[in-house]
Amino acid sequence: MELLKERIRKDGKVRSGNVLKVDSFLNHQMDITLFEEIGKEFKRRFSDCSITKILTIESSGIGIACIAAQSFGVPVVFAKKNTTKNIDGAVFSAQIESFTHGRVYNVVVAREYLSPNDNILIIDDFLANGKALIGLEQIVKKSGASLAGAGIVIEKGFQNGGKELREAGMRIESLAVIKSMSEDGKIEFE
Amino acid sequence: MELLKERIRKDGKVRSGNVLKVDSFLNHQMDITLFEEIGKEFKRRFSDCSITKILTIESSGIGIACIAAQSFGVPVVFAKKNTTKNIDGAVFSAQIESFTHGRVYNVVVAREYLSPNDNILIIDDFLANGKALIGLEQIVKKSGASLAGAGIVIEKGFQNGGKELREAGMRIESLAVIKSMSEDGKIEFE
Repeated sequence: MELLKERIRKDGKVRSGNVLKVDSFLNHQMDITLFEEIGKEFKRRFSDCSITKILTIESSGIGIACIAAQSFGVPVVFAKKNTTKNIDGAVFSAQIESFTHGRVYNVVVAREYLSPNDNILIIDDFLANGKALIGLEQIVKKSGASLAGAGIVIEKGFQNGGKELREAGMRIESLAVIKSMSEDGKIEFE
Repeated sequence: MELLKERIRKDGKVRSGNVLKVDSFLNHQMDITLFEEIGKEFKRRFSDCSITKILTIESSGIGIACIAAQSFGVPVVFAKKNTTKNIDGAVFSAQIESFTHGRVYNVVVAREYLSPNDNILIIDDFLANGKALIGLEQIVKKSGASLAGAGIVIEKGFQNGGKELREAGMRIESLAVIKSMSEDGKIEFE
């Protein structure tokens, strides 16, 4: 998606430890006009699928998932990173290791919001080592729902998550795949 | 907003400890069609203000804020509950006591996303004791931006947050204000 790649080249900042900072438009400040184009592109790529629900994970996937949901005409469910007293009853859960936060956490989705009748599209902002996707896929499997695939805004192609998950059979559509990036600000796409 | 009140009456569940569970359409599963109507209603109520940016707080405010932002034609910034290695540099911060989670946490917004030129609309899903709004107002004040007001989806009118903040001069537009609720499921609106 050229518009997105241009924006990453213009406003993305490379930090040490293979961190790509896109806080100014994607996951702290959010450019909703760009999100609308991202949503339309996900719909175009998954136009062959009858999606019934979008699944994402808090927090930075939520905005993109909600805007994309308008193109699909479906509700969004977001996996929560902690059980709170507002989620009672049974949940589907998985453990996810966070690259950004450097720790393992539990994510949960209330059982009532995923069912064997659902065909799920996962949406997230980043794909790097794939741990979040693996956790969300586990939750979908536990629910008995079908998984149509995953729509990712930025994939770090130089990490192995996307490659391993595609080889395992997951359909992944990434709108920008980074081949390499360096701290002098140079970002190359596949 | 009658559509919202009907939905709360139909799908809201009252739990012990004055918890109103609206997980099925507002803050776990999200009904995007309803969010669009909520966004239009916020725009109608704040049509006299030239909003430049919407400020919300992770996680459950993000979806509503993003959809509402389409009506206002502005970007969204969400306050983060933990500093991560993806937020470097200086931040505006505040401490907020969470009713839902029963603990105090730090929230931050990167300095570059709020400026004295901004006229901010805060959007959040719930207003109860007002702690989140107070924290977000502190962040806006620290940035030098103007605060146009706060748009709230559900206000618990039987708690004091909204009353105290309005008396202190904050403009608050709540789309559904709950007068009372009981565990047999009865919900009354103001």
